[in-house]
Amino acid sequence: MDRRSFLKTSALGGSAAAATTLAAPALAQGVRTLTMVTSWPNGMAGVHDSAMFCKNRIEALSDGQIKVEVKAAGELVGAFEVFDAVSSGQADMYHSSDYYFVNQHPAFAFFSTVPFGMTAQEQINWYYQGEGAAFHDELGEIFGLKMFLVGNTGAQSGGWFRKEINTPEDFQGLKFRMPGLGGVAMGKLGVSVQNIPGGEVYQALSTGALDGTEWVGPWADEKAGFYEITKIYYTAGFHEPGAGLSLALNRDLFDSLTPFQQQVMASAAAECNQWTLSMFLSQNSAALSRLASEGVRIMTFPDPVWDVFGQAAQEALEENRDGDIYDRMLDSYMASMRSSSSWLQASEGTYRAQRDRVIG
Amino acid sequence: MDRRSFLKTSALGGSAAAATTLAAPALAQGVRTLTMVTSWPNGMAGVHDSAMFCKNRIEALSDGQIKVEVKAAGELVGAFEVFDAVSSGQADMYHSSDYYFVNQHPAFAFFSTVPFGMTAQEQINWYYQGEGAAFHDELGEIFGLKMFLVGNTGAQSGGWFRKEINTPEDFQGLKFRMPGLGGVAMGKLGVSVQNIPGGEVYQALSTGALDGTEWVGPWADEKAGFYEITKIYYTAGFHEPGAGLSLALNRDLFDSLTPFQQQVMASAAAECNQWTLSMFLSQNSAALSRLASEGVRIMTFPDPVWDVFGQAAQEALEENRDGDIYDRMLDSYMASMRSSSSWLQASEGTYRAQRDRVIG
Repeated sequence: MDRRSFLKTSALGGSAAAATTLAAPALAQGVRTLTMVTSWPNGMAGVHDSAMFCKNRIEALSDGQIKVEVKAAGELVGAFEVFDAVSSGQADMYHSSDYYFVNQHPAFAFFSTVPFGMTAQEQINWYYQGEGAAFHDELGEIFGLKMFLVGNTGAQSGGWFRKEINTPEDFQGLKFRMPGLGGVAMGKLGVSVQNIPGGEVYQALSTGALDGTEWVGPWADEKAGFYEITKIYYTAGFHEPGAGLSLALNRDLFDSLTPFQQQVMASAAAECNQWTLSMFLSQNSAALSRLASEGVRIMTFPDPVWDVFGQAAQEALEENRDGDIYDRMLDSYMASMRSSSSWLQASEGTYRAQRDRVIG
Repeated sequence: MDRRSFLKTSALGGSAAAATTLAAPALAQGVRTLTMVTSWPNGMAGVHDSAMFCKNRIEALSDGQIKVEVKAAGELVGAFEVFDAVSSGQADMYHSSDYYFVNQHPAFAFFSTVPFGMTAQEQINWYYQGEGAAFHDELGEIFGLKMFLVGNTGAQSGGWFRKEINTPEDFQGLKFRMPGLGGVAMGKLGVSVQNIPGGEVYQALSTGALDGTEWVGPWADEKAGFYEITKIYYTAGFHEPGAGLSLALNRDLFDSLTPFQQQVMASAAAECNQWTLSMFLSQNSAALSRLASEGVRIMTFPDPVWDVFGQAAQEALEENRDGDIYDRMLDSYMASMRSSSSWLQASEGTYRAQRDRVIG
C-alpha cells in the first residue's frame, strides 16, 4: 500500500490531515528492498562473506528501512554481467571486484589492484585520505554508478602451477587465469591469459584448459580445492598486491535515497572494507599450514622472474594512458603509494624487521 | 515533553489511540545528548580529529536520535580522569587510549599497544576476527564500561632526545615521557619514566623537566613543536608499534540504548578505527619531509639498543601475569600476532621487498 491510498482509507478519517504531520516520515519510509547482484557463487570463501556483511550492516544501520536481497553469480545475471545490470538499473547494486570491468574502462583496475601497485593499507590511505574515493565516484558516474570500496583480500598469492617457474622463459605458452592488468602484464611474458569467473576455475584447471591459476590466498584457494590438482604453490605474487572489492549502486537509485540512507551505505561499506581485509588476513596463516600438511610445496619466484614482472607491470600500466582520467588517476595513485610506502617502511617496516630479529 | 503528556494534550483528541500506533516510534525517540570526555586538548593532531569523526558518525548514523558533545581534556574532567568519569556515570563516554589506565588494570595496555607487540593491522585482525573485542568487553565490564576500538596511530616514532642514543647505557638517568608498558620497559633500562598528558609535554621538554619524549609520529610531533627544542628524532620505536584509541561508554547507558543505537555505536567506532589509522599514516610521510627541512636529524636506534628493548619489553609483559584475565589475554594476543605476522611476512612482506628492489 502506498502512502496516498493509506491516507484515503485510514481509520483516522477527519483527523487525517493532523495525523499526517506526525506520521508522514514513518509512512513515507516503507521498507525498501534492494537487489544486490554479485560475482560470487553462494558460500565462496571471503568474497561471499563480504557481500553478506554488507547486506547485514546496511539492514541493521538503516533501522529497518532497507532490506537487501543478495543474488549469487548466475542467479539473476552472470558473474561478469553485474556491472551492466546495475548500470542499466536491472539490479540495484553489485558486490564485485572492479578489475573485472577494465573493458568498460581500464581505470577500474585501480579500485581492485594493479601489478606492482598498492598494498591494502596503501589503498585505504589513498581512498579515504587522498583522492581515491573521489576518482572512484568520477569513474562510476560515467556509467551511472555510485561507488564504494568494501573489502580487500590483502596481497594475493602468486598462484598454482603444474610445473615450477625457475626462469622467465617458463611462462611461454602457459594457459593461466589472471584478471585485470596483472593478466595484461602476464601476456607480455608469453602467457595465454584466461579471465574466467572464480566458480569455473577448478574445472578448467582439472581438465587442462588451464595450466595454472591465481585465485586469492591460502584460505580461499584451499576452499577452491586447487591443491587436489597440483601441489606447486607460489605465495607472494606481483599481480594483486591488495585486491579491493567494490559495492556499486545504481546512481539514480542512490540519489533517491534519503541523506540518512546514503550515509548508511557509505558507513556500511567502510566498515565492511576493514572487516573483509582482516578476515582474509586472519584466515590465511592457518590455511597455509593446512595446505603444507596436504603436501603443497610453498614456493617463491626467483629474483629474475620478479624483474620481468616489474618491467611488464610498468608497461601494462603505462600503455593505458589516455591524456584524461586514467592519467590523472595513475599519477595520483603512484604519488600516494610512494608517500605511504616511505613512511610505512621507515616506521612499521623497521620495527617489524627488528621484532623478527630480536624475538623471532 | 514526554510521550504521556503529549498524548494527553494532543490536538488529535479522540483519535489519539489510533494515531499512537503510527507515531509512537518517532515520539518516543527524542534527541538524546551524550557527553564525550576526551584525553585531548581541542585541535590536537589526529586524536582530536578521531574524536570528532566519532561524534559526527554517531550523529549521522543515528538519524538525529543522538547528539554528542565533545569535551576537551580539562573542560569537564582532566585528561586522565575520563576513565573514572565514565565508569561512575559522570560522563557518558570517553575517547582516549587505554594504556593511560594500566593502573586500573594492566591488561588495558593491549588495546592501546604493548612494547614489541602488534602492528595496527595485526591488532585489527585480533580485534575483529579473533578474541580481541570480546576481551576488551570483558575487561571493560569490570569497570562498568562498554568498549570499542576507534583508531590507531600506526607504529609510533622512537621519539625526541636531547642527546644521541648510541648504546643501551645512554638511557641511564634519562627523564623520558612514555606511557604504558613501553614506559615500564624503559624503566628497566634506567630511565626515569614520566607519564604526563600530551598537552603538557612541550613545556616539560622545554624547561628540562624532560630530557626527551615520545609522542606519536611526524605529523602529530610536528604540530606539538618538539623540533623547536631538539633536532634528534628517532623514527622507528619498540614501545608503541600500533597504538589503539578507544571509545568507552558507560555500560548502563549503553544498555539503555535501542539495538539500533547500539549498532550505530559499534559501526561508527569501526569506521572511525579505519579512518583514523589511514589519517595518521597519510599525514606522516609529508610531515617527516618538512621536519627534515627544519634541520631535524632522522635517526635509527642501533641493533644493541633494540636487543635491550626486546628483553625489557618481554619482562614488562610477563611480570603482569595474574593467573587470570591478563594471562588469557597475553596468550591470545601473542598467538594471534604470530599468526598474522607469519602470513603478512610471507605475502605482503615479500612483495614489498621485491617492489622496493625492482621499481624502487
